Amino acid sequence: MYRTKTCGELRLENVNEIVTLSAWVQRTRKMGGMTFVDLRDRYGVTQLVFNNETDAELCERANHLGREFVLQVTGCVAERSAKNANLPTGDVEIIVSEMNILNEAVTPPFTIEDETDGGDDLRMKYRYLDLRRACVRKNLELRHKMAFEVRRYLDEQGFLEVETPVLVNSTPEGARDFVVPSRMNPGQFYALPQSPQTLKQLLMVSGFDRYFQIVKCFRDEDLRADRQPEFTQIDCEMSFVEQDDVLNIFEGMTKHLFRYIKNLELPDFPRMTWHDAMKYYGSDKPDTRFDMRFVELMDVLKGYGFAVFDSAAYIGGICAKGAASYTRKQLDALTDFVKRPQIGAKGMVYARVEADGNVKSSVDKFYSQEVLQQLKLAMNAEEGDLILILSGDDVNKTRKQLCELRLEMGSQLGLRDKNKFSCLWIVDFPLFEWSEEDQRFYAMHHPFTSPRLEDVPLLDSNPGAVRANAYDMVINGVEVGGGSIRIHDSRLQQKMFECLGFTQEEAERRFGFLMNAFKFGAPPHGGLAYGLDRFVSLFAGLDSIRDVIAFPKNNSGRDVMLDAPGIIDQSQLDELGLKIEVKE
Amino acid sequence: MYRTKTCGELRLENVNEIVTLSAWVQRTRKMGGMTFVDLRDRYGVTQLVFNNETDAELCERANHLGREFVLQVTGCVAERSAKNANLPTGDVEIIVSEMNILNEAVTPPFTIEDETDGGDDLRMKYRYLDLRRACVRKNLELRHKMAFEVRRYLDEQGFLEVETPVLVNSTPEGARDFVVPSRMNPGQFYALPQSPQTLKQLLMVSGFDRYFQIVKCFRDEDLRADRQPEFTQIDCEMSFVEQDDVLNIFEGMTKHLFRYIKNLELPDFPRMTWHDAMKYYGSDKPDTRFDMRFVELMDVLKGYGFAVFDSAAYIGGICAKGAASYTRKQLDALTDFVKRPQIGAKGMVYARVEADGNVKSSVDKFYSQEVLQQLKLAMNAEEGDLILILSGDDVNKTRKQLCELRLEMGSQLGLRDKNKFSCLWIVDFPLFEWSEEDQRFYAMHHPFTSPRLEDVPLLDSNPGAVRANAYDMVINGVEVGGGSIRIHDSRLQQKMFECLGFTQEEAERRFGFLMNAFKFGAPPHGGLAYGLDRFVSLFAGLDSIRDVIAFPKNNSGRDVMLDAPGIIDQSQLDELGLKIEVKE
Repeated sequence: MYRTKTCGELRLENVNEIVTLSAWVQRTRKMGGMTFVDLRDRYGVTQLVFNNETDAELCERANHLGREFVLQVTGCVAERSAKNANLPTGDVEIIVSEMNILNEAVTPPFTIEDETDGGDDLRMKYRYLDLRRACVRKNLELRHKMAFEVRRYLDEQGFLEVETPVLVNSTPEGARDFVVPSRMNPGQFYALPQSPQTLKQLLMVSGFDRYFQIVKCFRDEDLRADRQPEFTQIDCEMSFVEQDDVLNIFEGMTKHLFRYIKNLELPDFPRMTWHDAMKYYGSDKPDTRFDMRFVELMDVLKGYGFAVFDSAAYIGGICAKGAASYTRKQLDALTDFVKRPQIGAKGMVYARVEADGNVKSSVDKFYSQEVLQQLKLAMNAEEGDLILILSGDDVNKTRKQLCELRLEMGSQLGLRDKNKFSCLWIVDFPLFEWSEEDQRFYAMHHPFTSPRLEDVPLLDSNPGAVRANAYDMVINGVEVGGGSIRIHDSRLQQKMFECLGFTQEEAERRFGFLMNAFKFGAPPHGGLAYGLDRFVSLFAGLDSIRDVIAFPKNNSGRDVMLDAPGIIDQSQLDELGLKIEVKE
Repeated sequence: MYRTKTCGELRLENVNEIVTLSAWVQRTRKMGGMTFVDLRDRYGVTQLVFNNETDAELCERANHLGREFVLQVTGCVAERSAKNANLPTGDVEIIVSEMNILNEAVTPPFTIEDETDGGDDLRMKYRYLDLRRACVRKNLELRHKMAFEVRRYLDEQGFLEVETPVLVNSTPEGARDFVVPSRMNPGQFYALPQSPQTLKQLLMVSGFDRYFQIVKCFRDEDLRADRQPEFTQIDCEMSFVEQDDVLNIFEGMTKHLFRYIKNLELPDFPRMTWHDAMKYYGSDKPDTRFDMRFVELMDVLKGYGFAVFDSAAYIGGICAKGAASYTRKQLDALTDFVKRPQIGAKGMVYARVEADGNVKSSVDKFYSQEVLQQLKLAMNAEEGDLILILSGDDVNKTRKQLCELRLEMGSQLGLRDKNKFSCLWIVDFPLFEWSEEDQRFYAMHHPFTSPRLEDVPLLDSNPGAVRANAYDMVINGVEVGGGSIRIHDSRLQQKMFECLGFTQEEAERRFGFLMNAFKFGAPPHGGLAYGLDRFVSLFAGLDSIRDVIAFPKNNSGRDVMLDAPGIIDQSQLDELGLKIEVKE
């Protein structure tokens, strides 16, 4: 080893020890006859001291060190006179007696400190330098730890990690596949898996009983802000289980992660129906760090001559505790917020509960104080609270708008603390989603999702009302995972295909392979998958998944550091039997 | 849960408990008024009993169960009168009181037992049924355990698992890449990584210090028997290390695996130079479970008029202990073995040490007993031993032939026990390999491999003699892992490129990206990679890696179960700007 200690481990008890460190120069500074160097590695920063009086030649060499030089130094650990309480190693420094420059460094294109002057593009191009910054590296350390604890928990629970292939076949539904031309099978293509869904169900047919895999998945989609063409799932499946068994195991896994990584003991996760989530939060992934539930106000506010409300299909309000002090300017800004095209509300009504208990609203000319007091009661509002109300022709759209307003108010009132975690399960998703465009039902999850058995009779009479044995885990308004109990009964599967409008031939062509496997004795089974990238970013308190990925791609799917994708040789195209025909 | 117990856990102490099991029917048999069913899951097999006298209707239903039906049964655990010592659950059986058929099964195409009637092709097509066989599933359980223990050990040693991207760029050297057309960057292609070599070196530049990853790698090569287009590596890299540091950490990892998985405490691994390995075993991956080292016999056997030896560039022998009793027929078979075209020897000379100490050889007419006694002495042979001798014009070729003969003798004499493990490091590989065809040197590992510093002066004068800081771990004649210390000094790297005959422009074009990153302060670093598939198959005592892969591909790179690769839609080709031009 080029070192006896790392830059993160020296403490007062090491004083007088002779140590050797090898690491990077973070910065140097001259003070009086001394030169100080902050030496940095993954484990921390340690201060080196060079004294011009005791060793002028060595000190002179230290004065010529550049940022990011790689050093090997030997010296004696000494107590600092001016201690740095912000550094774990801040009580000591090293009086250097020998220095060996292991490598020089040209000046980096941005400063390698938590606060950097490098813009996004530059840092992506030099990602290997960006990764030197402690704040970036810590996210990947967290990722390692989370993946490790996931494996430890699932191993203890009897799950086997099984690697499924990356070179598979094109799947019949879902997003666009990335494909890989096969040289040995000319004209044919592998597809990269969007998820190992089919293969994990096959493993259940194989009797693997409890499977998981932390696995790369691929989707060739037009990338939105927080999407990556390759992403990582914690993919799981269990046999002989009902919905509660799956929820219990994975609630346990999540608690395990919070316990061992955040040192937090979480209470049991509430289970909220999809219906309630939509009703009270206008979202299937409600942020429950704060309450501010929707109150439906159709009974309270309709019929008083305010045309907007009188004609509305939905009127709903939220109560922002203690926000009655909002100024006109702040309220106008909120109105502008909900009227933005991305949200699309027509307007916003507000009502303040004043110190004397009276309610003052923006639509006072339509409502008597008596009605406003009923509003206050319905909203469970108190003195000092602010009531915000949206309405509209379309129940679901208006709820979504109110959801955005609720989240915005939560942010403004500081109710969305990144160090607070509120976890819940959303259950009883609808089995089908009606497509207005195609005038048909689609499977909300996928066609193998089991309906709740008590709802099976509704498959014919009222498919839209059928609830699925499907579930999502939501933390702080983020869907971190989701899954379902699968159909293992071939007659029910047949029925499901009928409801989705597949002919027998079509079902056979699209799903025949899995259905055929099921004929050899499929166990009841179900599972779920977590998005690891998002899960880690949630733990890290980050908004973007990009920061928890070592080498992410940009929104055009490019790795700007590697400069991938790129051109390949004609000879390779020839071998693959391919010709490029890019249309202008 | 559909069960209260698994099929593997019931013992005598559970007698009289009421339990529920859910699993597959392995087989049924009628005896007297009883019907017995072996119920199988991942955890074991439990015997069910149906009694025609106590419940005729239930027993009748049991008589109609088919193989591989999925059952849920409830019953009382009872002690068996006829115990089965071969089964952990063999002391008990379940007197079934309720039975629910969870799923029926059509007759599987082969019997799902350790001894099966299914051929390779059939089992690959129905791999999900093949995986039900305990002997196949056990390999994947072992794989899970090994991967888990690798992670546990490396985590304890401060290694971070970092996921590197799968969609990367084409690498300048090595085997053929699989490529992935980019829809968003028309005419351009990603490549799938042959290994994360570049990225792990970048992570060292980033200061990650200790990296590992269990990662899928891809090579589009014409597949030989034991190759897969996608395979899994345990990929590792460390900073501020010398060769010994790497060897110690990974010798520790291997011992950890043997300890926790095989319950074996291994002695320290010998370190053998590549030169000695070639000299004594004719191979850089010697099987050291048995000795039988080569003895060079040029001095002993040359100059006695036997033209074959007199003109040979190499004469070498091995001593097969106790094999003097080999018959003429056996010896002829060995001669045929070494003369097979794959081995290519011209012939074989043998000499028996007889009970009286006399040596009797196949070339007695050329050699006196006195010379033969010198041979015996040189070979360290004793009464009852058999000496086998090969010779040839080409030292290396003859050694390889002798290596094959040695391995064959080891097998014939039962010296290659799959439950015995002999581990060693091969070190001091040559840095360069001379290509007769191209009349130039190639890097034996890759162009970033560091020469031994004391050999640097030879780079100019005698490149072929330069030893690399490169190492392989060999177990039972299998190279399970290998790696090297990398060059971190840019001048030495420049020198290396010169030796390999690259112009500065060529070096820049091929390796500029990594070299550029190194300019920002590269630490001394090194690492290695294990082939997980081969490592697991070694632990499993298997000859093929296919059996430790859940869904392997065949020799044409096809997944016959998924029927991948396959045809894709014209619309997808259009989106990718590609046209298929398969030549007949």
